[in-house]
Amino acid sequence: MKALVEAVSFDARGLVPAIAQDARTQEVLMLAWMNREALEKTLTTGYAHYWSRSRGKLWKKGETSGHVQRVVELRLDCDGDAILLLVEQTGPACHTNRRSCFYRRAENGTWRVILEPQDDA
Amino acid sequence: MKALVEAVSFDARGLVPAIAQDARTQEVLMLAWMNREALEKTLTTGYAHYWSRSRGKLWKKGETSGHVQRVVELRLDCDGDAILLLVEQTGPACHTNRRSCFYRRAENGTWRVILEPQDDA
Repeated sequence: MKALVEAVSFDARGLVPAIAQDARTQEVLMLAWMNREALEKTLTTGYAHYWSRSRGKLWKKGETSGHVQRVVELRLDCDGDAILLLVEQTGPACHTNRRSCFYRRAENGTWRVILEPQDDA
Repeated sequence: MKALVEAVSFDARGLVPAIAQDARTQEVLMLAWMNREALEKTLTTGYAHYWSRSRGKLWKKGETSGHVQRVVELRLDCDGDAILLLVEQTGPACHTNRRSCFYRRAENGTWRVILEPQDDA
């Protein structure tokens, strides 16, 4: 695992952006941040862990909501400064209860909402 | 366009991460950065423009290689701090001549290359 982590270029804050993509539908679900520890936890547990910049702490995605992300595949880009996770997403990925965080589309000069929140089961 | 740009939360460096995804295949191609000007140029021209952190300048993706990205759809995430571009990619997206920059996969403790460079036409 050391070799994996050492190939990653963390920025001045010690962070790297991580994209979560649905492994089945290929929908891009969210972008979050990892520090070294979050990446290590993700690799060892098989579940996506991120660094919350607002809360200043490590979090397991879905730790309170149950909307976890099982990592099917973890990829690194050419420069080693961006990560792509192919995940099996349980429930909606977005805290607004939408399938994806990218639910607004530029249309006629405004952001139009194109995804509705999902009903709770 | 002003309303579109003002909804975006640029970071302390004035940047926002932008994911480019192939609109047809849904493959995630790359992650790059936009400042306000890059976003405006992208919106006005319909072609992806980014901010190069290493070169400290605005660039049109493909300006030298010809591997441009026509923007089919531009999305914003829930927090307004990440952008998703659905693009029509001409040629390979990666400067290594690979279809996607995410060509390495974590496998048995190392990064395994899973995409080969494309032949030049």
